[in-house]
Amino acid sequence: MLNTIAAKDERLVIGLMSGTSADGIDAALVGIQGQGADSSFSLMASDTLRFSPGVRARILQCQGARAGDAGEITLLHAYLGELFAHAALHICKKGGVNPLSVDLIGSHGQTLYHMPTSVPMPGFSVRGTLQVGNPAIIAERTGITVVSDFRSRDMAAGGQGAPLVAYLDYALYRHHARSRIALNIGGIANVTAIPADAKLSQVTAFDTGPGNSLMDAAVSHFTQGAQGLDRNGTMAASGAANPALLARLLEHPFLKKAPPKSAEKGEFGPAFLKAVLQDFPSLQPADVLATLAAFTVQTITTAILEHCLQDIRYEEIIVSGGGAENPVLMAGLRKALPKLAVTTADDYSIPNKAKEAVLMAFLANETARGSAGNVPSATGARRPVVLGSITPGIQAWDHEL
Amino acid sequence: MLNTIAAKDERLVIGLMSGTSADGIDAALVGIQGQGADSSFSLMASDTLRFSPGVRARILQCQGARAGDAGEITLLHAYLGELFAHAALHICKKGGVNPLSVDLIGSHGQTLYHMPTSVPMPGFSVRGTLQVGNPAIIAERTGITVVSDFRSRDMAAGGQGAPLVAYLDYALYRHHARSRIALNIGGIANVTAIPADAKLSQVTAFDTGPGNSLMDAAVSHFTQGAQGLDRNGTMAASGAANPALLARLLEHPFLKKAPPKSAEKGEFGPAFLKAVLQDFPSLQPADVLATLAAFTVQTITTAILEHCLQDIRYEEIIVSGGGAENPVLMAGLRKALPKLAVTTADDYSIPNKAKEAVLMAFLANETARGSAGNVPSATGARRPVVLGSITPGIQAWDHEL
Repeated sequence: MLNTIAAKDERLVIGLMSGTSADGIDAALVGIQGQGADSSFSLMASDTLRFSPGVRARILQCQGARAGDAGEITLLHAYLGELFAHAALHICKKGGVNPLSVDLIGSHGQTLYHMPTSVPMPGFSVRGTLQVGNPAIIAERTGITVVSDFRSRDMAAGGQGAPLVAYLDYALYRHHARSRIALNIGGIANVTAIPADAKLSQVTAFDTGPGNSLMDAAVSHFTQGAQGLDRNGTMAASGAANPALLARLLEHPFLKKAPPKSAEKGEFGPAFLKAVLQDFPSLQPADVLATLAAFTVQTITTAILEHCLQDIRYEEIIVSGGGAENPVLMAGLRKALPKLAVTTADDYSIPNKAKEAVLMAFLANETARGSAGNVPSATGARRPVVLGSITPGIQAWDHEL
Repeated sequence: MLNTIAAKDERLVIGLMSGTSADGIDAALVGIQGQGADSSFSLMASDTLRFSPGVRARILQCQGARAGDAGEITLLHAYLGELFAHAALHICKKGGVNPLSVDLIGSHGQTLYHMPTSVPMPGFSVRGTLQVGNPAIIAERTGITVVSDFRSRDMAAGGQGAPLVAYLDYALYRHHARSRIALNIGGIANVTAIPADAKLSQVTAFDTGPGNSLMDAAVSHFTQGAQGLDRNGTMAASGAANPALLARLLEHPFLKKAPPKSAEKGEFGPAFLKAVLQDFPSLQPADVLATLAAFTVQTITTAILEHCLQDIRYEEIIVSGGGAENPVLMAGLRKALPKLAVTTADDYSIPNKAKEAVLMAFLANETARGSAGNVPSATGARRPVVLGSITPGIQAWDHEL
């Protein structure tokens, strides 16, 4: 079955992604020719299906070490399986494609807890991750073979399970003569540094610190949850950065670690923000937002200057994620890195909004071809590994019984 | 990769099972020729690796609707992955086989919660199950391709996800001229009724009620947890059944349901026992055990008389599970069903102690062959489905990078 899929000239693949912020499901339908660095993509449809506030709240209540319980997690595992299946069928309809002609679904799942640091247990120290959104339900509802739970295998091989985007960045942005940095500003910001004419093993990637997480947390805090983000950076643009708050933020211990490093959502979340803001009770919301934007820009640019630009002359930064749509961040990056061209994913073949879902399709395609999807120099894994588990779709012979 | 495995004359398969009682991991190494009803087995090694009391306690603390949390479940998912991998390597060593020559592992996982009844959620009613013991860790440690999480797909297709044993019972025990009932007495007891010369679709299977669960709970109760079972039925044999307690137990609502039906562990667990025993404070432990043994025998025999023997003259009951080693239960069954031969799994090709682990190997073999592993007339599923998710082992080409 997989052999038939793997042997095709072009595979039609659906990618499904839901980030830790649990805003909704990003779905993309993409034709993929080839594999790995030689993949070529034709994006046929993409969309975001937002979770209702009630569903989002139930997901967030199960995120974190002491959150949720076995019953609620079992329920979400099944329910998100249904919602991911729904998103897959929706994107088929939007793309005008019969689900029977789709070869694969790559499904990230919803992370409930990510534990990249070893915990000692009798006989073994363990690290792990918990992704829900049952692939058996997705496969049964759509009939399409599903590849899921990509992070677990990289972690089993000693990696952090993140960032997974490095290989796709390499496939999309590598250049024989230009050294480029792909910068993704999601909740957390991470960079993939791709020297000119680099082999995959020469690519490095790491988290730089906060992306939108602190700004989002601040807006939610100041609006009592009525708003979730500073759209277009309007609020930040109307304020001024506060030097004392900025200095305090820059003391965060994550910023002193050497790469490869990955940040956990909680490190730059509402609890951290609340603790810091207690010492700045009279600051206006706009000034807080301006400071957080400056902090985000500074942690990104410092990381690039210290860890990327020492040896190699990078010429371009390609920004993706929600941060690419924030003019305050983009202007800050251009000002801090005047010698680099600052572009966005939209300047390349895969539009910004579809990139994470296309990543899941890309990784599923690698697995179907029996090819490794992780980049050890990015995740810290001991070796390249074939990622994910494969849940069979519905085959013709399956109906003969 | 799977095609290579599927095309072999004989596949070397490891089965791994840990039941809801969380006593330990049953492992079996078995050569399987053919598939489905025409499978033939050569058992090369089997063993049980018991969990330490501390590990067992952590598992039990995460079982049930309101038990555990995301952090502890993530930890157990990874840790049990390590222990399952360890059990697989142990059984290779015991069987004198290099893991590199093993084709497949079938891993049941550890059930933390099973939710066969629909729960309404926005847009979808959902049912599901939560199995931990990360297959990515098993595959990475052993290098062997893993098939796992068999129950989810049957449930996605409308089934109860149980019993899974029906197809193996059919493969092992069907007879052209004799009608046989396979009776498994684990925590819960279930029967697979196989009429003479039956097609697979004519096999029925259902849970009859308690197996050892109530007796185990009583021993644990009376010994303050020092003992977990009434070995050889010694305590039950020294007491006498109490008619009033027996009548009270027989009021349990599960016994009035029509098959197909599956019992949840909690229905015949410590809480139920404790509630009933409150009304019988002066009963001696031995008499309670004798009554529970009589109750177990009566629920089994009544179910067989009412649901199996109405239309078909069954000639034999083949008993497996822990109950097959309890002389009180076996004598009770022989007395209540005098016209049937009462034998045990040990009288056939797969010994009783290895049967559940061999079942996991059998189901993995079906999936690798692209063949359905469930029996819809047993689980209630809409159709036969290929069970489980496939996590690739380590291939030669994987090392070429």
